[in-house]
Amino acid sequence: MEFKVKLLGIRAGGKQIIVIDDENASLLGIHSSDRVEITYKQQNIIAIANVATDFPKKTVGIYEEVKDRLKVQEGENVEIRPAERPESLGYIRDKLMGRRLGAQEIKMIIMDVVERHLSDIELASFVTSLYIRGTSMDEVEALTKAMVETGQTLDFGKKPILDKHSIGGVPGDKTTILVVPIVAAAGFTIPKTSSRAITSPAGTADRVEVLCPVDLTVDEIRSVVKKTGACLAWGGALDLAPADDLLIQVEYPLSIDPLLLPSIMSKKKATGADYIVVDIPTGRGTKIKTIGEAQALAQEFIELGKRLDMNIQCGVTFGEQPIGYAIGPALEAREALLALMGEGPTDLVNKAASLAGLLFEMMGINDGMQKANELLKSGKAEKKLREIIAAQGGDPDVKPEDIEVGNEVAEIRSEEKGRIQWINNIAIAQIAREAGAPKTKGAGVLLSKKLGDKVAKGDVLYKIYSGSAQKLESTVRLAQNLNPIGVTEKLGEKMLIDRIPTKKVSYEKHFILER
Amino acid sequence: MEFKVKLLGIRAGGKQIIVIDDENASLLGIHSSDRVEITYKQQNIIAIANVATDFPKKTVGIYEEVKDRLKVQEGENVEIRPAERPESLGYIRDKLMGRRLGAQEIKMIIMDVVERHLSDIELASFVTSLYIRGTSMDEVEALTKAMVETGQTLDFGKKPILDKHSIGGVPGDKTTILVVPIVAAAGFTIPKTSSRAITSPAGTADRVEVLCPVDLTVDEIRSVVKKTGACLAWGGALDLAPADDLLIQVEYPLSIDPLLLPSIMSKKKATGADYIVVDIPTGRGTKIKTIGEAQALAQEFIELGKRLDMNIQCGVTFGEQPIGYAIGPALEAREALLALMGEGPTDLVNKAASLAGLLFEMMGINDGMQKANELLKSGKAEKKLREIIAAQGGDPDVKPEDIEVGNEVAEIRSEEKGRIQWINNIAIAQIAREAGAPKTKGAGVLLSKKLGDKVAKGDVLYKIYSGSAQKLESTVRLAQNLNPIGVTEKLGEKMLIDRIPTKKVSYEKHFILER
Repeated sequence: MEFKVKLLGIRAGGKQIIVIDDENASLLGIHSSDRVEITYKQQNIIAIANVATDFPKKTVGIYEEVKDRLKVQEGENVEIRPAERPESLGYIRDKLMGRRLGAQEIKMIIMDVVERHLSDIELASFVTSLYIRGTSMDEVEALTKAMVETGQTLDFGKKPILDKHSIGGVPGDKTTILVVPIVAAAGFTIPKTSSRAITSPAGTADRVEVLCPVDLTVDEIRSVVKKTGACLAWGGALDLAPADDLLIQVEYPLSIDPLLLPSIMSKKKATGADYIVVDIPTGRGTKIKTIGEAQALAQEFIELGKRLDMNIQCGVTFGEQPIGYAIGPALEAREALLALMGEGPTDLVNKAASLAGLLFEMMGINDGMQKANELLKSGKAEKKLREIIAAQGGDPDVKPEDIEVGNEVAEIRSEEKGRIQWINNIAIAQIAREAGAPKTKGAGVLLSKKLGDKVAKGDVLYKIYSGSAQKLESTVRLAQNLNPIGVTEKLGEKMLIDRIPTKKVSYEKHFILER
Repeated sequence: MEFKVKLLGIRAGGKQIIVIDDENASLLGIHSSDRVEITYKQQNIIAIANVATDFPKKTVGIYEEVKDRLKVQEGENVEIRPAERPESLGYIRDKLMGRRLGAQEIKMIIMDVVERHLSDIELASFVTSLYIRGTSMDEVEALTKAMVETGQTLDFGKKPILDKHSIGGVPGDKTTILVVPIVAAAGFTIPKTSSRAITSPAGTADRVEVLCPVDLTVDEIRSVVKKTGACLAWGGALDLAPADDLLIQVEYPLSIDPLLLPSIMSKKKATGADYIVVDIPTGRGTKIKTIGEAQALAQEFIELGKRLDMNIQCGVTFGEQPIGYAIGPALEAREALLALMGEGPTDLVNKAASLAGLLFEMMGINDGMQKANELLKSGKAEKKLREIIAAQGGDPDVKPEDIEVGNEVAEIRSEEKGRIQWINNIAIAQIAREAGAPKTKGAGVLLSKKLGDKVAKGDVLYKIYSGSAQKLESTVRLAQNLNPIGVTEKLGEKMLIDRIPTKKVSYEKHFILER
């Protein structure tokens, strides 16, 4: 049936959507969320139909994504008919029913994800089914390979490629900014791509952006890696495993993460990594609560690595408090720079040296941690970071005190004396976000105390940095509600942890999607 | 944050959707599919946000549903902020995790469904979880009650109210058009509301609409029932259990039906029914394949009825071929009218008398089927149908030959001799839909033979009726592909049923959502 084009001037976040009126939709047998085939000048594309009442008859409302692909103009005619049901829908349904999927079936699903042939309803049902039914290692392997094959891959013309990844979940984890220059300073190639924060106060890309640009093209990345042996780039615009990004958009509102392994490993495979150390932060307030869980996950990473020709080692790390003292992009960038200059907090330096050390040992070096510590102490790692900063277009001579942090500051003090018995990661992250992180680079939280530290009544527990007085005020209110740091003389002295139902605080969305 | 209103002039099928630009969405911490609270002149509503790139900054695109509720004009300012996460989302997540839900939790979910506070992604995950995790009878009861309480209810000021329902799945099932006048002719009250076809060639409302208007208001229904003791109305616009309609919109693309019982029983409860006979068509090509399944489902209907103060009897009926010979609104209306006039096919008349008889026996009448047959033979049922037609605004003197059927007709003949061994319900339904049913009232299929009938080579098996030569041609092609009727001398003579992989025919979407 012919429809006249009406350009809506709206982008749908990448989705290919059109709008048609209910009368003609019904004549064509099209329901909302059905796929339609649009033909214009010998081109065919598939889009998802929104059926609208009160929409002009025989008119098709075209979102920008569809306009870009078809190059149609306002008022032109296009042919619309119901599209054939994609074969992949049958496989999504099979998964819903509990069947294991074959590699070819998974490939077809992932291709249709990338081609935007599936509606949100279908994607949501798919990830829900994956979550409830579980995935076999064969399925995980097929998902990972399909995600790689449907996107760009990087080739640096060098082997081996080293890499480091954290499954995330601990605020203030700026370890990557230390590990990458340490490893590169030893002469290895480590082209690191990172994500921005989704639910956390800062992703590695947000932190590095305080020091230099991170939004590099593939060619720019190649040039930086050629010069320095490393990079610290944002991976989001490189089209590496794009299916992953699209599925994350559905996982996020559902707060489920059934594609953790394929998501991480497809990005790594796409960048050509051969040797990878995977950090699994473990403990209360992280994704992985117990050592047992961490070990099971590590085995899966290692097995999947074997199937993909990648050497994986996992480091299970202590995650029951933030890494270092700083949370928020600028505060963290400053702390990382200080750490490379020899003035870093013990836990951050120890974690970075441990993980770099694991990579060194994978490459045949004895006592990798010692090697990592030498590169730190000698200043070679700092020098390497400054090279990377310069190559990416930042100021290589940046000093910690040059880094601007929020000028509105509040101090939160202890009402009791004793020792720090617990620090609530999720609450700290939420406070930093309320203060404005990651959007406001200088916003965040700076801890004054860490687990086990002695505290006198009235001592500062942490400071909140914000860009505006108004933001600061609401953040202080939230902090008072959340009470993220526990001070007692001795653990177990105060036995009541929570009362249910308790006063409702805005403290619900604690799903960690960061990888 | 203040945004300037831009009216989009699009309806979103009832959903409350707004569009904002990605930059300000990010500042507000809003992702696509997140809920936002919009404030305008002391009014607050919740809408689902679409985050769009390239959308004018600080501008909010407003769909018609939101405009209608807020009564805003182009260019005015509204305040937008992230909405609190609805409590019901936590319960949806609990179900995803496999927990049983309490009545109050279910009530909150259904309320948020009706208030449009949940996105398609969340609804899809909920029905997927319900399907995979299953529902306890307590949950089914709570779902049903919540669906009733969040919609309109009808009160006819009379007791008892009788009703009849089929779970659907058999093409050509015009039984209701006989049962309702039979029951009303005996002096009982049976205000029947029916649905239109979703995936089938005709719903009861589509069939009755050939005889008289069905789109009645609540007041009109009351008046018709007062005059005649019955009605045959469309229930779609009466706001009975609206949550059901909204959930069906998500179940349909997923081809799953986890809410079958609450869906049916909430509509019945909302119309005040006390005594209900539920028809469960059983066999190949229906929803329920075996007698065992039918019995299990019947027990659930009866148990749920007890909990809702409704008396239920179920009739398990033979569903392996269409009821009567006609499939498609006009063809079926004609066949039903003929049946009431004494010239109906045996299976249709037997089924109608059986189901009406079950209702009579529930009301204390001995040998209900005999009573039903008497009312048919005496012409009292026909007279009652004509009263109903008149009361609803149709022509009470309508003759079967007045009913217009498609003027483009093709005959499909047998290529073999033998007996009809099987009739594929789904294929027959698909052929009738391809011919134009239910939209084209006169389109459909008229069988010449039924199961067990003798066939000579070249005999007409069925006729296809359509409104246009072009439609007819494509339908004949589909019919040749689908080969919906099997003729052999003796069952089991041809042992090969299918070859896999076989030639792909457009015969995939055989999910039956009709109730």
